[in-house]
Formats: sequence, structure tokens, C-alpha cells
Amino acid sequence: MTRVTIVEVGLRDGLQNESVILPVEVKRRIAEGLIRAGVKEIEATSFVHPRWVPQLADAAELAAQLPREQGVRYRALVPNAKGLERALSTPIDEYAVFLSASETHNRKNINKSIDETYPVLAEVVERAQAAGKRVRGYVSTVFGCPYEGDVPVSQVVRMCERLIEMGVYEISLGDTIGVATPKKVKETLEVLLRHIPAERLAGHFHDTRGTALVNAYVSLEMGIRTLDGAFGGLGGCPYAPGASGNVATEDLVYFLEQEGIETGIDLETLCRVSVEVQKEIGRPLSSKVLQSVIATWSSVGKGES
Amino acid sequence: MTRVTIVEVGLRDGLQNESVILPVEVKRRIAEGLIRAGVKEIEATSFVHPRWVPQLADAAELAAQLPREQGVRYRALVPNAKGLERALSTPIDEYAVFLSASETHNRKNINKSIDETYPVLAEVVERAQAAGKRVRGYVSTVFGCPYEGDVPVSQVVRMCERLIEMGVYEISLGDTIGVATPKKVKETLEVLLRHIPAERLAGHFHDTRGTALVNAYVSLEMGIRTLDGAFGGLGGCPYAPGASGNVATEDLVYFLEQEGIETGIDLETLCRVSVEVQKEIGRPLSSKVLQSVIATWSSVGKGES
Repeated sequence: MTRVTIVEVGLRDGLQNESVILPVEVKRRIAEGLIRAGVKEIEATSFVHPRWVPQLADAAELAAQLPREQGVRYRALVPNAKGLERALSTPIDEYAVFLSASETHNRKNINKSIDETYPVLAEVVERAQAAGKRVRGYVSTVFGCPYEGDVPVSQVVRMCERLIEMGVYEISLGDTIGVATPKKVKETLEVLLRHIPAERLAGHFHDTRGTALVNAYVSLEMGIRTLDGAFGGLGGCPYAPGASGNVATEDLVYFLEQEGIETGIDLETLCRVSVEVQKEIGRPLSSKVLQSVIATWSSVGKGES
Repeated sequence: MTRVTIVEVGLRDGLQNESVILPVEVKRRIAEGLIRAGVKEIEATSFVHPRWVPQLADAAELAAQLPREQGVRYRALVPNAKGLERALSTPIDEYAVFLSASETHNRKNINKSIDETYPVLAEVVERAQAAGKRVRGYVSTVFGCPYEGDVPVSQVVRMCERLIEMGVYEISLGDTIGVATPKKVKETLEVLLRHIPAERLAGHFHDTRGTALVNAYVSLEMGIRTLDGAFGGLGGCPYAPGASGNVATEDLVYFLEQEGIETGIDLETLCRVSVEVQKEIGRPLSSKVLQSVIATWSSVGKGES
């Protein structure tokens, strides 16, 4: 193993969970910084209705302003045909559809049953592909649901198979509420990998209970080569009720590079992006690697050994 | 595997790295809380000279006030013969000696070369054992030194063998600056375990770069059954220069119990201890599990679903 692809979801999954709404020019600057750091896969925004996610209401405007750079791909969430219309009028490179592995979470999140969701997603995938766009699939609450607890693996398998049949090229397995530990990740992947090849799966871990890296480690051991992360660990204040941040891209990069796995991302440059974001949102971000890198800068500045 | 022993080092390794000095009665209440939570192994203080660690200057006073409870063992650091004199006048059950795997860190921390340190520790161990006390050994900077970088495993092996020859019953392997990742932990343990049985080794991981749990996971896979942790992840503010907290006992307990490994520690009761400590030191502690448990309490209180 020499390389892992990190999908940087901070601009979308991170920002949509922050109470602060960042101006479009700040988001553009973040994208510029991510590109400087070497990030190639950037989930930039979401075309869900702005009423539900006001933080990302500027999706079309942002999409038009994103810096174009060879090799960099922008992604956006697309919930339904209406969202697809908006997305198709922008230069976003590829889309992602989403649903939950558990019925109750799907209803709360999408306001539809799982069975009602499938045809909506199938239409998005078909029309997106007709327009020459690749579509990724997100399955949420794979490792546990806040309403139903454990989610049967068989349910996850069926859902992934349906998504693949629709034409989704990759499925990101979401530990939405951050309850997974290695045992659960292994049990789930062992079954899933009998039906779907590892190169079509990605790990999307939240660090709510500090287990994101160990889950990433186990996923890598089982052959997964794509991991989602958010700069700084953005998304959900660590000291606010319901806190649930994505695993920090900085933490992933440090960990992977130490393990001898290339990410193509420069840690210090990425940290500089997160430092700017900290100023914008007015609180320190939760990434431990970010904070330790900042501490190094401070010591150097002060001439400490 | 069904059980892991957690050595709770928050009162010592945690508090000695906090700028706030807690009153002795607060420390006693923390010990009471830890016992209520089911913690059996409590490193309560250190008999280093109070000039170096003013946070623990009340070592003898605290030791005299600690609640006595069947099955609970108190431990304390003892740096030298003078510290041993102080320790022996208290009811602390067992001691720990310490040194660093890297020469420069040892000099900075102990003000002696490694070779000068051995006879000092040997005297402590011999006299402690003569007084009927077990002695643990701490080896710091096992997985990396802030001054020397990588530390040769052969050096760690020699040091551990010397400690075992002295009569130390267990060696806690310290990732003092939190730079280890699984590759390094595996490489180190693979060599060490050829010389020293797993039951005489413990993992002491700092979560400076978020890798403590994954390192604990790898250690468990390699047969280690004793892990050090500090309630709340105390020790080093996560947002201060040089931050470097111990792995949070809460994070360890959640992780281990989810993996089907018993710790004997009740998570919610432990979190109540950390909540009190947060009030005392005036900042949120870094444990992600602690913060997520607090969030659950808040939702329940507010009647959220």
C-alpha cells in the first residue's frame, strides 16, 4: 500500500454543521488553500434546499467562483431532481447522492422512507450520468443510528447493491454519529466486501468519541483506499451538545504519512488553511494535529527548544 | 481477551501538566469519584521535589487523606532516595521509578545521564522492596524524543532489561510527546516482546496527535493488557503551546467496552468526576467521549430526542 485518496469534505459536511455562515469569498479562499496543500478531491457544497442548510445557500455562487486547477475535482451533494437542476448549471465536476442505512434516520434527514428515496436517487444518477457527471453515494448511520441503535449489516449490503446498480461509482460508508469501533467496522466490512469490491468503498468517520483514526486504520487493513476528512475536524463544536465533527484531515494526513502511506497533502500548508478558518468561525478547531502544529509554530517563534 | 487493567494517572501525570494547582481536598474528592467509578489502580501523586512540580507539592498530605477501599491500590512516582524517604512515611501502596529512553530527554527531565540514573533507581527499587512495596518502571520517549527524534529499539530493550533486573514488576512504555503511530508501536513491541513478556509491559499513550487509541488498539492486538489513562484527557491544554494530554480514560473505556473488553469502570460515573474537574480548572477537558456524554445529558435535560 502506498497511497490513500482523501476526500476533503470540510467545505460541505464541516460547514453545514457550523452555526456561523461563512461568506462566499472566504469559502473560495479555503478552496484555494486546500489546493495549495495538494488536496485534489474537494466536496465544496450541497444543493439541498437552502432552507435546510442555510450555511450552504450560496452553492451556485460558490461553484462559479471556485479556482480551476488541473487535477482538482469539485464535488457537491445533490438530494433530488430539483437540486440536480441547480447543480447542472454550475461547473461542479461530480455529485453525491445520500440516504441512511436506518429507516428512522432516513425519514428525519430526508423526510422519506428508504423505499421512497431510491427512485429519487436513481433519477438523479441517471440524469447526472447523461450529463457526463460521475455520482458518488453516501450511506449514513452504517455503524449505528441515533434512533434505532445497531443497523443490520444485511440492510447496508442491500442498500449498497442498489446504489451500485443505479450507477454510483463509489459508496462512502458513514459513521454519522461516531459510534463505531474496530469490531463493528470489521464485522461490517467483512460482509460488505463479499458483495462490493474495496475500491468502490470509502470510509467516512466522525470523531465524536475519538475512534475515527482507529476505524480508519482497520478500514485500511481491510483494503479501503479512500477516506473522507474535514480540515481542522470542522463540523460540530467539540464542546457543544450534539457535537460530532468529521475526522480531521490533518489527523488523517499525519497518521497516514507516519504509516508510510502517501496522501499528496502537505500538512503545514493544510494547517494554515485551518488557522484562517479558526479566525473566521471564532473558535479553535478540534484537530489535535492542527493544535500541535500550531504549538510548534509558537515555540519556534519564541525561540524555545 | 476479556479484561484490560487501566492505570488512572490523571491525579499525577494529568495534574502535573496543568497550570492550576488544585487544593488537596479537591484531589481527595477526585480519588473518591474514581473509586465510585470502579477504578482500582490510581497513580495519585509524585514525590519529586516540590520545586519541580508545585502542582503535586502536597503529595504526603494527599496520601494521608486518600480514601481507603478494598481492592484499590494507590501509586506514586519516586525519583530518588530522598523522594523514597517522603513516600515511605505515607500509606501509598506502590511506587514508580522513571527515566527516558533518549539521553537528551533524560538529562532535561532528570538532570542526569542515563548511566547516572540507573544506580539511583536501583537504590529506590531495592529499598522500596525491602519495605514491602512493589515498584513499576516508566520509560519515557520510547516512540520518539523531542530532541533526538527516533529512539533505537535496541536502546529501549536494554533499558527495560535493566529495569526488570532491578526488580521492577512492570514497565510502562511512554509515548511522551504523542508521536507514535501503529507502525512504530508494532516495530517496537515486536522486538521488545522477544525479551520481555507482554504481562510485564503497559502502554502509556499521549493523544497529542490523536493517535493514542489506535496505538492502544495495536498494543492490545500484540498482547498488552495494561493501559494508562487520565480522566478527561487531563494534562496539557489542547489549545496551548506544547499541549500534550494523556489518552482520556473515558475514551479508553468507551473504546474497550465497545470492543467487548471489560475495564470494570463505569463510564458515566467517571464522566461525573471529569465534569467536576472541568469546573475546578476552568476549561473543558479534551476527552471526546466525555464531551459526547455531557451532550447526551444536556439533551436529556432539554427533553430532546
